[in-house]
Amino acid sequence: MAETIFSEMSRLALEHDAINLGQGFPDTPGPHEVVDAAVAAMHKGWNQYPPAVGIASLRTAIAEHQRRWYGLDVEATGGVVVCSGASEALSSAMTALLRPGDEVIALEPYYDLYGATAQLLGAHLVPVRIHAPDYALDPAALRAAVTGRTRMIVLNTPHNPTGAVLSRDELQAIADVAIEHDLIVLADEVYEHLVFDDNVHVPIATLPGMFERTITVGSGGKTFSVTGWKIGWATGPAPLVEKVLGVKQWFSFAAGTPLQHGIAVGLELPDSRLAALGADLGRKRDLLTDGLRELGLEVFHSKATYFVTADVAPLGVTDSLEFCRSLPERVGVAAVPNQVFHASPEGVETQVRFACCKRDEILADALLRLRKL
Amino acid sequence: MAETIFSEMSRLALEHDAINLGQGFPDTPGPHEVVDAAVAAMHKGWNQYPPAVGIASLRTAIAEHQRRWYGLDVEATGGVVVCSGASEALSSAMTALLRPGDEVIALEPYYDLYGATAQLLGAHLVPVRIHAPDYALDPAALRAAVTGRTRMIVLNTPHNPTGAVLSRDELQAIADVAIEHDLIVLADEVYEHLVFDDNVHVPIATLPGMFERTITVGSGGKTFSVTGWKIGWATGPAPLVEKVLGVKQWFSFAAGTPLQHGIAVGLELPDSRLAALGADLGRKRDLLTDGLRELGLEVFHSKATYFVTADVAPLGVTDSLEFCRSLPERVGVAAVPNQVFHASPEGVETQVRFACCKRDEILADALLRLRKL
Ligand SMILES: CSCCC(=O)C(=O)O
Ligand SMILES: CSCCC(=O)C(=O)O
Repeated sequence: MAETIFSEMSRLALEHDAINLGQGFPDTPGPHEVVDAAVAAMHKGWNQYPPAVGIASLRTAIAEHQRRWYGLDVEATGGVVVCSGASEALSSAMTALLRPGDEVIALEPYYDLYGATAQLLGAHLVPVRIHAPDYALDPAALRAAVTGRTRMIVLNTPHNPTGAVLSRDELQAIADVAIEHDLIVLADEVYEHLVFDDNVHVPIATLPGMFERTITVGSGGKTFSVTGWKIGWATGPAPLVEKVLGVKQWFSFAAGTPLQHGIAVGLELPDSRLAALGADLGRKRDLLTDGLRELGLEVFHSKATYFVTADVAPLGVTDSLEFCRSLPERVGVAAVPNQVFHASPEGVETQVRFACCKRDEILADALLRLRKL
Repeated sequence: MAETIFSEMSRLALEHDAINLGQGFPDTPGPHEVVDAAVAAMHKGWNQYPPAVGIASLRTAIAEHQRRWYGLDVEATGGVVVCSGASEALSSAMTALLRPGDEVIALEPYYDLYGATAQLLGAHLVPVRIHAPDYALDPAALRAAVTGRTRMIVLNTPHNPTGAVLSRDELQAIADVAIEHDLIVLADEVYEHLVFDDNVHVPIATLPGMFERTITVGSGGKTFSVTGWKIGWATGPAPLVEKVLGVKQWFSFAAGTPLQHGIAVGLELPDSRLAALGADLGRKRDLLTDGLRELGLEVFHSKATYFVTADVAPLGVTDSLEFCRSLPERVGVAAVPNQVFHASPEGVETQVRFACCKRDEILADALLRLRKL
C-alpha cells in the first residue's frame, strides 16, 4: 500500500518547516473541559483497558448527542461502538460488511481510506462524481452506478475535500436508491459540527427507512479539536453496530481510556459550544477564500469542513500532485492535491485543497508565502 | 465474529461486581513519570495528529530500548512503527503479509487475536501445541506443521496464557525452521519485561539470520501498566515494517498523540525501573500460585506475564468455559478458560487462567471467594 497523501504532505511540511495547510487539523486548543477531563481520568488511574465497545459514559453521551441534535434514538447499549478514530470505525465497518468482488459506491472526490480499504478487501470502489463549483449530486448518475454487486454506499457529508453539505433532496435521492436496492449506507459525518453560515447538516439516518440500514460515523477529534486523540464512533442499529465491533475488537481492541473520558465530557457541553466551533471556522474559510481569490485563483465555495478547494491553473500549474510535492520547499506551504481523492485525475488536474483551520495570522502568513508563486 | 473472551468475562465481572482475574490488566498505577508526561503533552497542546508512523521521540525511544536491552540495531526511521496497541501491530502485520489460503503456525495455546485475524483474512492458523506442566516446544511437531502454504510463524514469548519463556534452544529450533522454509516470524513479545525470577527473555530477532525476517511487537501498556492507552509498536527491518505501516494507516491511521509522549518518557526511565515491575509481579505470582494450591488445585509454574494457569478438575469441573461463565455470579471472581486459546479444547478442558497482576489484598480476597467452591 502506498503512503497516504496526508503522511506524505505532513512529512514534507515538517522537512521544509512549511505551514501545513495539507492534513486537516486545527492549531488552536479545543474546549478546555475536554482536556481537563482526560487529565483528571489519568490522575484517577483510569488508564486500564476500557470495554472494547467503549466506556459506558461515552456511549451514553454519544447516544444523548444523537438524540439532542438529530432526534435519533440510538440505544447506548447496542447502537454505539467507540473506535480508534473515525478511521477505524470506517475500516472496521467496511471489513465487516464487504466481501471480495462487492462494489461500494462513493461520491467522488472521496476520502482516500474508502478506496484503500475497499482494495484491501478485494472490493471495488465505484465513484459517482460531484462537480465543482456547486458539487450537486446527479441522482441519475448515482442510479446508473448501481449493479447487482453493489453492497454499500459510502456517503460523506459534510464532504471532504469539497466542503459540500448534502441537501435533504440529495440525501433523499441516495436513500431512495439504498432502499430500492437494499444497500447499506456507511455515513461518514465526522464534520457534522464544522458547518458554516446557515447550512444545516442532515444525518441520512434521520430519513424515513434509513436508520436500519445506516452506520453513522462521528469523530471526537474533529468535533473537539483534538484530532490526535483518535476517538471516533459508529452508531446505528444494533445488528450492524455489532458487526463493526466484531471486527474492530481484532484491529485495535479498544481506544484510549482517558481520552474517551475527555470526549464524553465534551459531548455533554452546551450545544452552543459545539456550534461556536463552526462559526469560528466559517470566518477562517472567508479569510482563506478571499486571500486565494486575491491571488487570482478560482476558489469553490466551501460550506463546511476544514477545507477550501482552489483551482491553481492561473499559476501555470498543470499537475496539482507535482505542484503540492514541490510547494513546501518552494514557498513553505503544504497543501493536498484533490486528484488523490479521485479514481482518475481527469478534470481535477489543477485543483488543490487548503486547510482553513489555522490561526488567522498563520493563514495570513501562508497567503503571503503563496504570493511568491 | 464472536465477542472476545476478554470482553465477555470483563462484562460478567462488572455485572456481578466480581474481582476480575480474567482480562490481564494491573490495578495499580505504573511509573508516575509516564502519566505526568502525557498530561504535560496535553497541556502543551500536543493533541493533534501524530505522524501515522508515530512521533519521532517515541520511535527513537523504542529503537534505543531495543539497543540497550537486546543489542538490536533497529533504525528509528524505517524500523519502528507505533500502533494503536500491540493488537493493531499484530492485526496489521498479519493483514499486510498473509493472503487467503496461507497457513500461519502458532504455538498453542495462542492468543485469540491470531486465530480471529487469520480467519478474517481467509488464512489458516495451524497450531503446534505446547503442553503443561513445562510447556516445552517439540521441534519435531513444529517441523511437521510446515507445508508448502506456510507463510508465517506467530511466536509469543513470554507466552500468554502459560507464562512460559522460550529458551534460547527452543528459539533456535524455531529460527532454523523459519530460515529453512523462508518464513516470516511475527514475534509477540509484549510481556518482555514481565519476567520473574532469573528467567531471561530472548527476542528471537537477536538470533543469527532472524532480524531480517522478524517483526517484533511490543506494548507500552503492558510495560508501563497503562493497558488502556493502547500504544504498541512493531519493529524490524524497514521493508517489513513499512508493510505494517501500509496497512495500519488505513486501520486507525495513528495512535493517541499525548499518550505516545507518555510512553516515550517511560522508555527512557532507568532499566532498573522496568526490571522492578517483573520482580513485583513475581511475588504476586507466588501469592496466587500458593493460594490456588492451598485450594487443592494443580497450578502450572508461570515464569512470566500477568498469568497463572490452574487445573480446576479437583473442584469437579469438567468444562472450564461453563465454569468461567458461572464463576462471577457464583463466587464473585472472573477468570478465563484456557480452552479459548486452543483450536480444540481436548486435553485442556479443565484449565483456567487467573491474572496475578492485582493488589495483594485483592488476590487474598479472590482466593477467599474461591474457597467457597
Ligand atoms: C487521518 S489524516 C487525514 C485527516 C483528514 O481527515 C484530512 O486531512 O482529510
Ligand atoms: C486486549 S484484551 C486482552 C488482554 C490480554 O492480553 C489478556 O488478558 O490476555
